[in-house]
Amino acid sequence: MGRLSELFRPETVGVVGATDREGAVGRAILENLQSDFEGEIVPVNPKRDEVLGLECYEDVASAPPIDLGVVVVPPPVVLETVRELGEAGTKNVVVITAGFSETGGEGAKRERELREIAAEYDLNVVGPNSLGVMSTPIGMNATFGPENAREGSISFMSQSGAFITAVLDWANEEGIGFKDVVSVGNKSVLDETDFVEEWGDDPETDVIIGYLEDIDDGQGFVRTAREVTDDTPIVLVKSGRTDAGAQAASSHTGAIAGSERAYEAGLEQAGVIRAESVQELFDYARALSGLPEPDSDGVAVITNAGGPGVLTTDAVGDSSLEMADFTDETIDKLAEAMPDEANVYNPIDAIGDADVERFGEALEIALADPNVGSAVVVAAPTAVLEYDGLAETVIEKRDEYEKPVVTSLMGGARARAAEEVLREFGIPNYFDPSRAVAGLDGLARYRDVRERTVDEPAQFDVDRERAREILERAADRDDNRLGVESMDLLEAYGIPTPAGDIVDDPDRAREVAESIDGDVVMKIVSPDITHKSDIGGVKVGVGDEDVYDAYEDLVSRARNYQPDATIIGVQIQEMLDVDESTETIVGMNRDPQFGPLLLFGLGGIFVEILEDTSVRVAPIGEDEARDMIDEIQAAPLLRGARGREPADVDAIVETVQRLSQLVTDFPSILELDVNPLVAGPDGVQAIDLRLTVDTEELNDD
Amino acid sequence: MGRLSELFRPETVGVVGATDREGAVGRAILENLQSDFEGEIVPVNPKRDEVLGLECYEDVASAPPIDLGVVVVPPPVVLETVRELGEAGTKNVVVITAGFSETGGEGAKRERELREIAAEYDLNVVGPNSLGVMSTPIGMNATFGPENAREGSISFMSQSGAFITAVLDWANEEGIGFKDVVSVGNKSVLDETDFVEEWGDDPETDVIIGYLEDIDDGQGFVRTAREVTDDTPIVLVKSGRTDAGAQAASSHTGAIAGSERAYEAGLEQAGVIRAESVQELFDYARALSGLPEPDSDGVAVITNAGGPGVLTTDAVGDSSLEMADFTDETIDKLAEAMPDEANVYNPIDAIGDADVERFGEALEIALADPNVGSAVVVAAPTAVLEYDGLAETVIEKRDEYEKPVVTSLMGGARARAAEEVLREFGIPNYFDPSRAVAGLDGLARYRDVRERTVDEPAQFDVDRERAREILERAADRDDNRLGVESMDLLEAYGIPTPAGDIVDDPDRAREVAESIDGDVVMKIVSPDITHKSDIGGVKVGVGDEDVYDAYEDLVSRARNYQPDATIIGVQIQEMLDVDESTETIVGMNRDPQFGPLLLFGLGGIFVEILEDTSVRVAPIGEDEARDMIDEIQAAPLLRGARGREPADVDAIVETVQRLSQLVTDFPSILELDVNPLVAGPDGVQAIDLRLTVDTEELNDD
Repeated sequence: MGRLSELFRPETVGVVGATDREGAVGRAILENLQSDFEGEIVPVNPKRDEVLGLECYEDVASAPPIDLGVVVVPPPVVLETVRELGEAGTKNVVVITAGFSETGGEGAKRERELREIAAEYDLNVVGPNSLGVMSTPIGMNATFGPENAREGSISFMSQSGAFITAVLDWANEEGIGFKDVVSVGNKSVLDETDFVEEWGDDPETDVIIGYLEDIDDGQGFVRTAREVTDDTPIVLVKSGRTDAGAQAASSHTGAIAGSERAYEAGLEQAGVIRAESVQELFDYARALSGLPEPDSDGVAVITNAGGPGVLTTDAVGDSSLEMADFTDETIDKLAEAMPDEANVYNPIDAIGDADVERFGEALEIALADPNVGSAVVVAAPTAVLEYDGLAETVIEKRDEYEKPVVTSLMGGARARAAEEVLREFGIPNYFDPSRAVAGLDGLARYRDVRERTVDEPAQFDVDRERAREILERAADRDDNRLGVESMDLLEAYGIPTPAGDIVDDPDRAREVAESIDGDVVMKIVSPDITHKSDIGGVKVGVGDEDVYDAYEDLVSRARNYQPDATIIGVQIQEMLDVDESTETIVGMNRDPQFGPLLLFGLGGIFVEILEDTSVRVAPIGEDEARDMIDEIQAAPLLRGARGREPADVDAIVETVQRLSQLVTDFPSILELDVNPLVAGPDGVQAIDLRLTVDTEELNDD
Repeated sequence: MGRLSELFRPETVGVVGATDREGAVGRAILENLQSDFEGEIVPVNPKRDEVLGLECYEDVASAPPIDLGVVVVPPPVVLETVRELGEAGTKNVVVITAGFSETGGEGAKRERELREIAAEYDLNVVGPNSLGVMSTPIGMNATFGPENAREGSISFMSQSGAFITAVLDWANEEGIGFKDVVSVGNKSVLDETDFVEEWGDDPETDVIIGYLEDIDDGQGFVRTAREVTDDTPIVLVKSGRTDAGAQAASSHTGAIAGSERAYEAGLEQAGVIRAESVQELFDYARALSGLPEPDSDGVAVITNAGGPGVLTTDAVGDSSLEMADFTDETIDKLAEAMPDEANVYNPIDAIGDADVERFGEALEIALADPNVGSAVVVAAPTAVLEYDGLAETVIEKRDEYEKPVVTSLMGGARARAAEEVLREFGIPNYFDPSRAVAGLDGLARYRDVRERTVDEPAQFDVDRERAREILERAADRDDNRLGVESMDLLEAYGIPTPAGDIVDDPDRAREVAESIDGDVVMKIVSPDITHKSDIGGVKVGVGDEDVYDAYEDLVSRARNYQPDATIIGVQIQEMLDVDESTETIVGMNRDPQFGPLLLFGLGGIFVEILEDTSVRVAPIGEDEARDMIDEIQAAPLLRGARGREPADVDAIVETVQRLSQLVTDFPSILELDVNPLVAGPDGVQAIDLRLTVDTEELNDD
């Protein structure tokens, strides 16, 4: 059990601000606690001697020791109350009271102070602005919501209290149970990462689910969730996915809009299964909390109805699963057991007059097939099919073969009783067969998460000191952007750049050109001129004898274009064989939640028009770098499609990792683009570079 | 009312094969009819004098006149029975009996004969292998399913009888009503197009829905559905979308797998709203059958719960709708009516203590805003919010403003009674806010269908006779493929090709080259050599003086490569300025259901690697041709992205239409590819052509 175990397993719960006043939150919490809590309840309120039949204490100091303090006092008294709890030795506090950072100004200040007190006394604080917490094994409902949760193995956190009340009412009806429930409120101290960590260590939690509007510390969350998901699935609805939603989230909880792409990448890297709606969240949660893991992707579909069988097959086709390919033995056994008109290939159509026995036989034969990892039983109501009996048969066969089985017993009233039975034995029933398949898909997705290997980021041997010196140049600049003149930053991190140099006189230009085999490329270098090509600031294929004149020409064009431009000089670069190579882009920008977000894509239209890019939160290891390259649509172009020479993908993979190390080593790099990184058959060359540096931050790096 | 009105509104229904034997289909149908049918029921069975209290007739001839004959006799007697019905003047027949084309061989033969009898007597035949038909306004349930449908305005067809029984049981519980229901069975005579046409003319049908595994006559369906959807929405689940599903559909109903892309394009062109699951089908159907049409895309969200409000906003962001931008007046009015802590911007958060009155005020102010086309009321259960009252307020405001309102009163048991009230007044309630938005989205999608204009395909002035002569050349060939030697086919249809000719001696080659300005391109022309470039069969930029030698060289290379190749000659073509132009592809293949499927894309990697193409069922008009170009991802490249000269998109649009006309005029063209069609700033040129001709079919064109 983790550091928060006492928060969810207190022996004594104090309610500071307890009251018997009708409609008051302090009363609702007390009543909820009284309904079922196994431990001791300690009301605290200086104006009462007794509340709802319980002895009430004047203050925390005079009350018995409290394991968990629930604070419902008015906003101005909250800080004082929490401090008193700290003084009295309480370690776990839930602040129900609202009026903190969500109201801005004064409230935000109050919340900062709350955080300081928590740090001083080493308190686990939930909230403020929380609906409260629940833990069903000890019957604790320390919320002011209208419902107790059923007992179960799903632990649930929510950044919206209303979301909890809405879900619980529905979940009780659907027979979905919970272990712990927490309304995280403003997350002043404890946040999603803390609860994920706690429940990851909790043997009674089979599945962690959550509704979140933001994630405070993306990097920390990814690290923690990655470990937790080795044993416990995490399913999250992260709202604010769309621009409109992000804006709404920001006015609801003050969520800072990180980019949706960062969330997408970060949650995926964390091993989180993401749901897009309440329904999907629970479709996944139900399957993950009740069913064994499938050992293969093959799904058997058993039905008495051709049409729904086809629909189910489509849903399997849409998912990450596939229709199981039955062995000959299975086909033979089915042919023997089923009537002639039945279809013994997958989906098995046991036809309209199938009874429980025939369904049972078909299911048994299918589950015995080694190619079948899971099964869906899809039934339409008929006169001969008894749903209750079918439910029992499904449970029996599932237990016998230890493979996940879900059902879609279609129909309304007819399916109710059977649904109850199935639910009790952990088998989710869905009216819509496509949702049944979605449930199985959740199981398979989690299995893939468990089986993945995340390799540690490589630590290349780099010249970090030299990189720091180069970045410090930015401090001497009017603006904080660096360009091609800082290519040695890449060299310091072992990323190849073409032979050449930046020079500031034409004679030196010729010397450099002569030291390079073949013709050269020459480019004006100026922080004030971003679109070099547009002003004729680039010359390609210059022979040694023309370099002097070309230098003069480039500088005079730049002067004509912008007389006051700072001209650093002219870059002389080896000319690469472009016919044999592909332009790629590797970039990074810093996300407010997740930190450095790496981007990879092919250059030009692929990025600008087709937006064909992949992203990952740095730092990343080799596998993830390789995945970034493989997942762009245009990847076959790098692999040698259409008779091209394949590019040196290993060199790209290494470059992406080296950049990952660079931006991780230097948080002061706010943005960085290597564009293009030219990838040829025998390696890569970084041709151009732009980056933005936070010169303040640099001192901390 | 259409030609099938009597099928759904018979005064007398005859049941041929009626029986009182327990468990028999003939009994189930009779009982279902007896339960509620307003008209006369006529049992026919030579072995009975009376069945279930009704006088039973020996044969059809001796029975009173029958408007609708339901046939449940054994397979061998079906044909004879249908003939008797025809002789007796019955025009509408439902064949329940199975054992026809779905069993192959003998059954397929029997089904062909059934079709012949139907043609002979001009019969409307449903089935065979049908569950039957229902029509609720006259209380007619002429099926052997276990449920009567509730009365409503949705008409429903299904290619799976089980799908109907599954849906009806559930729909009855959900309070969803139907007007007509038909199990189309094997569609021997009447198919989806007939029912769509009928219901399009039926004032009592507000929405047409269906479950289909195939569409027999795609072209006819598109034409009919296009007209029907001007007034009546059609929502379809077409299963067999995925490869696995298509295979399952084929073994279920013998559906011929047309390509999913053809269905996607054809259904879209037909104005059909496609649903991917049972749930989505009814989410759309419910909204379309009960709610007015939104006059703008702006959605107002009114909630008492921040989190669900954000989720709803995300769902709006995902849909074709958008969050309404409130006027200043609306903001002011909301600010006055709501408490300080409320959010008066969209989504409106009336906060946790909102009661019915506050919800009502917020909804009223929002609906009065001209920027609001529709509204979603999202509520979490609280102590102060009375759901029943909220339901009444929502109904009242909806009626007052005549704008669509949907609700997501979250919660289980708590929401039930309110849900009932809302349903009765045509307002669908959804537990999941994202489904509520999907309902509104269905309304908006249908409004877009109604507002679209489908322009008639243009009839260009073409040389059809010349085209026919060229196609006939294929008849003289060993295989039925034509290539670049048939470029005059394109010319006959007014599609520009580069200046040049195909010649079979080097002197003539030089003459042609001299008649062309500038250098030329030369290509070997042989039906046996498909990859010309690979064997050096293409020469680019040949000057007039080199043409003779180039000719000899091309021919000798071809001979060396394949001594027995048929060599038609060498093509001499004007050389185009490729720097200023973009390669595109226009192609066609013939789909078994939908006929000619046109394809457009940019050449090379865009088609082969990125699969960035658009398709339409021909014939198409100008708007659709333009849409084909606009909807590819790479379209900006044609529009002048990245400083390129824009291509002559009008010329591409015209070429696509001319090809549409060509492939419509000649069904004998099985496949055709113009690759590339080079698009420059001032027009297009078709550079190469391949097509496959069905030489048998040619005679019918």
